Amino acid sequence: MSLLEEGAALQLDWSKLEAIALKRMGVIPVAVQHADTKEVILVAYVNREALDASITTRTATFWSTSRNELWVKGKTSGDRFELVEVYVNCEQNSLLFTVRPRREGICHTKNREGRARNCFYRRLDMETMQLENLDS
Amino acid sequence: MSLLEEGAALQLDWSKLEAIALKRMGVIPVAVQHADTKEVILVAYVNREALDASITTRTATFWSTSRNELWVKGKTSGDRFELVEVYVNCEQNSLLFTVRPRREGICHTKNREGRARNCFYRRLDMETMQLENLDS
Repeated sequence: MSLLEEGAALQLDWSKLEAIALKRMGVIPVAVQHADTKEVILVAYVNREALDASITTRTATFWSTSRNELWVKGKTSGDRFELVEVYVNCEQNSLLFTVRPRREGICHTKNREGRARNCFYRRLDMETMQLENLDS
Repeated sequence: MSLLEEGAALQLDWSKLEAIALKRMGVIPVAVQHADTKEVILVAYVNREALDASITTRTATFWSTSRNELWVKGKTSGDRFELVEVYVNCEQNSLLFTVRPRREGICHTKNREGRARNCFYRRLDMETMQLENLDS
């Protein structure tokens, strides 16, 4: 449980994309949306290998930009996402995956009841600029 | 009307993030979702200036990574997006904006009836690997 993940302070990591680029990963961002509830679950990255693996296995597979390796979402926890549909934007530089969690879990962080959360569990209060945890 | 935007061929731009990083823009990706229909409209980028402008004006404002300047979505067309809510992910390296279009238009591309589309108007057929235009 880190302050970054649990705190109310907005501490955005503005340097991540530069770090990705320096490693020449050839990735593009993917918005991942729950096919049924329409929640946006996370924004991740794919390279060709991850996109191919996603399509072949019909399981959402990303490129872990921190570990620099293929990341089958939920491989460890068992909380994999079935890949339902893939959409491409006008300029072909971002993707939208609609997915259906095979079990309940989504984010690696958990709420007090021990249930895995949606990654976007904090809302920015635009008056105070503090984060509110919607699923603490 | 370019082939990139209207064609059925998947021609992903795997180099965009590297190009962004080389320019040291300090941006993070933002998934932009329609607050009412829950459609994912586009994935864009903000730097600090664009995020501050979004919050101050309550209007979705991005950093144009191609023009390297502040991009008030819809400034030219009048199709601005009211910024409804801002969410931050666990690792604070991506954002989710929920927005409400002040008029109808969304993407700069238009369908045959001349209406502006959602940016994700093409779905990848995972068998043929061709794109299907859902709003031609």
